[in-house]
Amino acid sequence: MTKIGNLPIPLQKKLPPRSVERLSKYRRLLGAIHPGNGEYIFSHDLAQLLNLTPEQVRRDLMLIGLTGSRRKGYSIKALIELIGKTIDKREGYNVAIVGVGNLGKAITAFIRKTHTRLNIVAAFDVDSSKINKETAGVFCYDISQIPTVVRKLKISIVILTVPSHVVKEITGTLVSSGIKGILNFTSVHLDVPSDVYLKDYDIITSLEEIGFFIKK
Amino acid sequence: MTKIGNLPIPLQKKLPPRSVERLSKYRRLLGAIHPGNGEYIFSHDLAQLLNLTPEQVRRDLMLIGLTGSRRKGYSIKALIELIGKTIDKREGYNVAIVGVGNLGKAITAFIRKTHTRLNIVAAFDVDSSKINKETAGVFCYDISQIPTVVRKLKISIVILTVPSHVVKEITGTLVSSGIKGILNFTSVHLDVPSDVYLKDYDIITSLEEIGFFIKK
Repeated sequence: MTKIGNLPIPLQKKLPPRSVERLSKYRRLLGAIHPGNGEYIFSHDLAQLLNLTPEQVRRDLMLIGLTGSRRKGYSIKALIELIGKTIDKREGYNVAIVGVGNLGKAITAFIRKTHTRLNIVAAFDVDSSKINKETAGVFCYDISQIPTVVRKLKISIVILTVPSHVVKEITGTLVSSGIKGILNFTSVHLDVPSDVYLKDYDIITSLEEIGFFIKK
Repeated sequence: MTKIGNLPIPLQKKLPPRSVERLSKYRRLLGAIHPGNGEYIFSHDLAQLLNLTPEQVRRDLMLIGLTGSRRKGYSIKALIELIGKTIDKREGYNVAIVGVGNLGKAITAFIRKTHTRLNIVAAFDVDSSKINKETAGVFCYDISQIPTVVRKLKISIVILTVPSHVVKEITGTLVSSGIKGILNFTSVHLDVPSDVYLKDYDIITSLEEIGFFIKK
């Protein structure tokens, strides 16, 4: 079994997005398995729980330097730890929610309920009734304070739930303030530098896509 | 220019998910362009607005039987209409929200604000304080009424925002009641029949994925 410490960083960086996604799911699933269910798990059991092939699971785990024992499978504890070492930053991530309307508030509450290494440390809005107080349990700043607050609180990821007509301008400010990751809940296409990791959660487009594929 | 009426349905069905996604985006973008900006658009202009290559745009439009004129480009009106004929069902889609906590309510309000062919016709919950009245502008039924209401209101798509421990059971009921499309906001992996189109919006996993890729 190779220790993650032996893996050069560039190799870790090369993990495909799908593998990272699955590793995150393996960990969540394993964390939910009651300790009484045993200390080891076989790749085929893990695969079955997530509808994957055992080969896929073994390939993902090999990518982070983990090989199971043929007799016992993988140590659940080692698995959870190694996935954490691979995909987590030691101190967690500081996340801000930009736009705290109903959707922004609900997403904030949802994330705060789950126990992850994602710390929502700030909210931004233009609504003076929300600014300078807590909203959804997070302190809300005026949007004009983005450059200062992002740097001061070391925010690296934002969740964007602002109205369409201001998305581009705000994204520009966020990127120039040093934001490196964006989860975009708006339907606006964003053009970000290559060192910014963007993930689109475009609800309307996704529902239209679903609608198309179920059309008779 | 080929009319969509000439395209056999099986050909339309073969559109790749990514093309459907982009077609939906083209339409939204074109709908937002002020009529004063001209009646025609070139593939390279459309491409630039969405950070795509002109070849990609032309390929997508060819898939739905549309070719532009070299001199004028594509008629914006024809484009919007043809995309609609391809990806919309004539009468729109009846959608239900299953689980109307804060996230469910916010998503419902968000979709109702946009003008799409997605009709949110029902909500389902277990909370007796919500049942048999409107919540987020949609009538809320007891979760036990899923089989009856799904059939009666011809609901084909659901948005799932229920707590993790009930997701699997509720999904089973939804599928056996005839649901064909699911937008899954929970972190639970769903195992659905091949004729059900599933799209996962797993916020925590996506944030962890973003976190991994921006890790220094």
